[in-house]
Amino acid sequence: MPGSHCTKGIQKNISSSTSAASSSPATTFTELQPLMADTDLPSEHGNSQENRKEKDPVQPGPTNLQRARARFLKGISYFSGDMKVFGKWMEKQFFLLQLLDWVLRGAAQVMFVNNPLSGLIIFAGLILQNYWWALNGFVGTLFATISALILQQNRGAIAAGLYGYNGILVGLLMAVFSNKGDWYWWLLLPNIFMSMMCPIVSSALASINSRWDLPVFTLPFNILVCLHMVATGHYNYNFPQVLIQPRSQLPNITWAEIDVAKLFTSVPVGIGQVYGCDKPWTGGIFIISLFISSPITCAHAVLGSAVGMVSGLALAAPFGDIYFGLWGYNCVLACIAIGGMFYALTWQVHLLAITCAFFCAYLSAAIANIMSTFGLPACTWPFCLSALTFLLLTTGTNKIFKLPLANVTYPEKNLGFFWKLKKQEKMERAKKAEKESEEQQKAIKENIILNEKEQLRLEHERMEKGMAESEASEDENDETHVEDHWVEQQGTGDEEMGHNDLTEVTLGDYD
Amino acid sequence: MPGSHCTKGIQKNISSSTSAASSSPATTFTELQPLMADTDLPSEHGNSQENRKEKDPVQPGPTNLQRARARFLKGISYFSGDMKVFGKWMEKQFFLLQLLDWVLRGAAQVMFVNNPLSGLIIFAGLILQNYWWALNGFVGTLFATISALILQQNRGAIAAGLYGYNGILVGLLMAVFSNKGDWYWWLLLPNIFMSMMCPIVSSALASINSRWDLPVFTLPFNILVCLHMVATGHYNYNFPQVLIQPRSQLPNITWAEIDVAKLFTSVPVGIGQVYGCDKPWTGGIFIISLFISSPITCAHAVLGSAVGMVSGLALAAPFGDIYFGLWGYNCVLACIAIGGMFYALTWQVHLLAITCAFFCAYLSAAIANIMSTFGLPACTWPFCLSALTFLLLTTGTNKIFKLPLANVTYPEKNLGFFWKLKKQEKMERAKKAEKESEEQQKAIKENIILNEKEQLRLEHERMEKGMAESEASEDENDETHVEDHWVEQQGTGDEEMGHNDLTEVTLGDYD
Amino acid sequence: MPGSHCTKGIQKNISSSTSAASSSPATTFTELQPLMADTDLPSEHGNSQENRKEKDPVQPGPTNLQRARARFLKGISYFSGDMKVFGKWMEKQFFLLQLLDWVLRGAAQVMFVNNPLSGLIIFAGLILQNYWWALNGFVGTLFATISALILQQNRGAIAAGLYGYNGILVGLLMAVFSNKGDWYWWLLLPNIFMSMMCPIVSSALASINSRWDLPVFTLPFNILVCLHMVATGHYNYNFPQVLIQPRSQLPNITWAEIDVAKLFTSVPVGIGQVYGCDKPWTGGIFIISLFISSPITCAHAVLGSAVGMVSGLALAAPFGDIYFGLWGYNCVLACIAIGGMFYALTWQVHLLAITCAFFCAYLSAAIANIMSTFGLPACTWPFCLSALTFLLLTTGTNKIFKLPLANVTYPEKNLGFFWKLKKQEKMERAKKAEKESEEQQKAIKENIILNEKEQLRLEHERMEKGMAESEASEDENDETHVEDHWVEQQGTGDEEMGHNDLTEVTLGDYD
Repeated sequence: MPGSHCTKGIQKNISSSTSAASSSPATTFTELQPLMADTDLPSEHGNSQENRKEKDPVQPGPTNLQRARARFLKGISYFSGDMKVFGKWMEKQFFLLQLLDWVLRGAAQVMFVNNPLSGLIIFAGLILQNYWWALNGFVGTLFATISALILQQNRGAIAAGLYGYNGILVGLLMAVFSNKGDWYWWLLLPNIFMSMMCPIVSSALASINSRWDLPVFTLPFNILVCLHMVATGHYNYNFPQVLIQPRSQLPNITWAEIDVAKLFTSVPVGIGQVYGCDKPWTGGIFIISLFISSPITCAHAVLGSAVGMVSGLALAAPFGDIYFGLWGYNCVLACIAIGGMFYALTWQVHLLAITCAFFCAYLSAAIANIMSTFGLPACTWPFCLSALTFLLLTTGTNKIFKLPLANVTYPEKNLGFFWKLKKQEKMERAKKAEKESEEQQKAIKENIILNEKEQLRLEHERMEKGMAESEASEDENDETHVEDHWVEQQGTGDEEMGHNDLTEVTLGDYD
Repeated sequence: MPGSHCTKGIQKNISSSTSAASSSPATTFTELQPLMADTDLPSEHGNSQENRKEKDPVQPGPTNLQRARARFLKGISYFSGDMKVFGKWMEKQFFLLQLLDWVLRGAAQVMFVNNPLSGLIIFAGLILQNYWWALNGFVGTLFATISALILQQNRGAIAAGLYGYNGILVGLLMAVFSNKGDWYWWLLLPNIFMSMMCPIVSSALASINSRWDLPVFTLPFNILVCLHMVATGHYNYNFPQVLIQPRSQLPNITWAEIDVAKLFTSVPVGIGQVYGCDKPWTGGIFIISLFISSPITCAHAVLGSAVGMVSGLALAAPFGDIYFGLWGYNCVLACIAIGGMFYALTWQVHLLAITCAFFCAYLSAAIANIMSTFGLPACTWPFCLSALTFLLLTTGTNKIFKLPLANVTYPEKNLGFFWKLKKQEKMERAKKAEKESEEQQKAIKENIILNEKEQLRLEHERMEKGMAESEASEDENDETHVEDHWVEQQGTGDEEMGHNDLTEVTLGDYD
Repeated sequence: MPGSHCTKGIQKNISSSTSAASSSPATTFTELQPLMADTDLPSEHGNSQENRKEKDPVQPGPTNLQRARARFLKGISYFSGDMKVFGKWMEKQFFLLQLLDWVLRGAAQVMFVNNPLSGLIIFAGLILQNYWWALNGFVGTLFATISALILQQNRGAIAAGLYGYNGILVGLLMAVFSNKGDWYWWLLLPNIFMSMMCPIVSSALASINSRWDLPVFTLPFNILVCLHMVATGHYNYNFPQVLIQPRSQLPNITWAEIDVAKLFTSVPVGIGQVYGCDKPWTGGIFIISLFISSPITCAHAVLGSAVGMVSGLALAAPFGDIYFGLWGYNCVLACIAIGGMFYALTWQVHLLAITCAFFCAYLSAAIANIMSTFGLPACTWPFCLSALTFLLLTTGTNKIFKLPLANVTYPEKNLGFFWKLKKQEKMERAKKAEKESEEQQKAIKENIILNEKEQLRLEHERMEKGMAESEASEDENDETHVEDHWVEQQGTGDEEMGHNDLTEVTLGDYD
């Protein structure tokens, strides 16, 4: 059957052109390729490798420089991104080692980073800041993870550290805001209780937020730390909190006294304040830990902190607050969340992230003032509320694409996911157009065939009449020719049919 | 075929009776007919006009008075209601003119009025109150609308001013509560920023509220103005707010000192306070702008303001607050929203609107006290919360009919929509009953036919026997008669079938 | 037809085994059987009674003791649980009597008890506490129920007292927190208004909460009482509230001064505080009223109050607050709600209920501090928020089973529902396995039959050949034998088919 053979040939061509199309953007963005190595779906993965093999002989062999670079990128991919390979390897290890992996990932997940190495560096930064705080943070993460295991929460989410990040913040901030000073061991009791409540509150909030496909962010941390602080308050024997009071007079702001150096260090300090740390070096270490996993996240973190600082100046905040990074940390988180994490990064989304950071700065001033009435810090409420608001936004443009929550990984991989989707859409549209034009051609051909058949029939009739009159020798030749032509056309039709079927199968794979 | 002809006849009768039924309430409520001119669905529109033509020759010609009145109402319909004709005409105009239309509609949408003329009158009232406030309001509406255009929000909603009304309130109230006095030009910066945030917050809230088919009301305005005010506060260099403090001692209330005249002017002042205006004349102008678009809205606005005033007295509020209209504006909005805007106006809904106004007054006292702790005014939170509560209410009665959000226009048109729905239901029920009785009759007839056939068969048998015995002359006549009768019955059956089919088609149109 | 007869026999066996299975747990938990008498679905009810009759003759007759016990339990079942028999009887009575029944059930529903006798005892406790409060509570329940009737809410919910319990709390607490003292008759006006608002707020909240299959708890009461209190406040001429202020210095806590006796009485006082009562005897009466309806509820109420007291000590609360039961009442409600009311009671759920009580105690301290800023008491906000959080929890274990809201009755009956569900699942699984094995056997048999048929056919052929050769006497006997065998097999097949059909029908009933 030549038709079916022909179909196979077309199939090959199409799939190779598909892979060519899908590999082209990878070359325009080579730096990030190792990060996106596992972007492809498994089904396609095989195809693309196969095709690469096919193409390799055609292309000239890679130079030594290219090879070295490839090896370098391959090496990077082992400890950047979400360290998937390491995570898979961990699954077969001893339980306590696994738990450590989860705790480290949980520590990094505060910044939306699912990477144990980043988590390790973050713990290093915390130790640099304060031993006691670091201990409390570790205890918090550990018990939050254990509680999630007891409550039989989703194992994948636990392994990604998604039940730990609220725990580390609860542990840290309860230590930071305790008025009893460091090494007040009784504090570990409410710390453990509140950490173990984290998965419960997370699960409850997720039940609500999942209706709008929204994450819970650090809402459980905000709720639980505020709960602990306001339940005990400043005037308490067992667990007193630092005194926070609302502003009741004009702050002393003299523009001449501004310290530009401190203003610049406020950018890393703002990043450090995400974990309640005020040392610039700790903030710097956190920046490194972000860069390791995802440069886009790192860039938006710095940008967010800068936006917060500028907003503080614009709204005439006391310089002390700005230097202390209080205007930065919420903007850092909001800018990361919108800028590539939950939206696919385009220029429009980048602008949206900056807008969100400004809005978040405004909101953090507002919430800090409101919370101070109850003797509470702003925690990360401003980030949660502003990011949720911007994630609930619906627009008519397809340049602002909100990733389905299940597909969120890290900005580079999200971007790969978005590009693939767009390419598929384009290809589908192209194929649809192609199909339509083919159908039109087919319709034309069919018309021709029908006309020819009609002629044939007429000739037959004439022939029959002619047979009676014995004038049929020329006509018979004609008929055979027409039949040949018809068979040819039919064959072409089959090919097209096969092609169309194939198209549908290919599209079906993408769905 | 007499059957099919007969069917057509029935169809005519039915459709004419339909139009007769639909025109009867219009005559009982003639004043509002021009407002409801476009209530009919396009498909029915043609029918009803056609039928009117058919009926006209039958009826005596309209008198001169009737004609003048019709012309007068036609004229009114051009600038009352939502000015649909004007809106359609605007679509072909220059973009800046369109934008002006949207801004004016946005200004009026605060009161749920989608009418550029009302918007123009409202701006006149604002200018009468304070130039600077009016300017801020205009800037707010303009930038909110522009931001919605940039974010590619729904064009129909933008054209209806649904993205502008939060902007005008943000602009106005930020100017009203600024402690820097008028013409502090820097205020335009946060004004523009907050106005441009309006569509984002609106869109986010709509994502949530749409799950319950609820509007966002003025929640974005409430959120953003409170955000700005509490972020800066009274003690701020750049954007200080007026000082608002909670009550800490018994207010001085002497019933002898009550000023009845001021109490009466508090009704229009309450309506003016929706836009933050305290001059009675401004309030009066707003009342006129409401009356132009929708008398029902206007009546409920006045009623709501009165209810608020009475509630203030009942709860022993300081007289100054009552005179100043602070007890009125939320009740005005709540009473409009429930009384005919989102519910179809019936007596039960009217009572519900008054209940809602009382509840709203209670709530506004409560929220004002809570917000004063943070140095904030009550804004329109009480209206939003009370109206949302009353819109979430579910009852077993069909007298309280909540309109689908997509069908909400203005009270008079909503009422027309509700009546049409009710009429259709009635008609459907009547037709169902009719159909059922017909089916019963048909079944009876079929039984008769079957019996006759049985008799026929028996006679045939007898006949055949008789043929053998040669006694058949009388019997044959009988048979023909029976057959004729059967054909007749068959014809009647066809008619009924046709009638039933028609019924289904007619009902199908209504769905 | 032996096949169908056989089927009936199997059906009997199965249904009797079903009833045997369902009666076995009842014997292990005999004390609660009368409470669960109406657990069975009506359709099954007839069956199980029938089977009991069938079994009785087989079993030895019950001794006198057993008979007396059965009669005693039967008697208990009339006034314990939800008094369904009484409720049914009430439906045919005079309207005012019905209304009284609903009011009494409403009074008890605060504790999730749907029992008019408990309600009567609770009113007795309230009268013991304070006549004026009891009167206000009665007025509140009455008008809330009437308002629900006017708004045509669900009749079943009204009859269960689900529209009354917010009313009694509104009435009671408005009287408790009024600063005008007892017998200030004007208070009845806002009392009636707020009670009549209860069904509106309940209905609105239910529209939201029903999306997550959550109850509204006492949220309407919390909203409306806080609304009234903060709207008027302490500094009001008409309706002043008691002065509540935030703590501004360290409380005087000397552990030596602790009064252990008072600490113990704080447990019943905590239960009494659910209705705002501080007398231990009133609390004791409430415990009795709970025990009458449901021992599990009663046990969890006492447990919750004890947990609250311990938490108060742990968080260094002033002893006065603990003695006064302020740490208990929220934990009481939370512990009842989680411990068997909305979750089926297992050991895991019991532990969860205790955790929830601890969380609720923490939350009540926090909310009391926040609300005191506005001069408000904590009301039952902590209970509502903690119970909702724990009801939103999703876990991977089937030991924590949240009952569908429509199936919630009282802990003992809920437990019966849960056990039945579990048994059905087990049975279905067993039947599935049985069915599968049967199908395998059937397939094997069919193969055998097919083989035999094939042999038969071959023999027939041989036979036909033989007929021609006149050698057929022996073969014919063989054939008859085979046919008999085939009929036998067919019969067995029918039996199996019948069995399977029955299985499906039985499972269908359970769905």
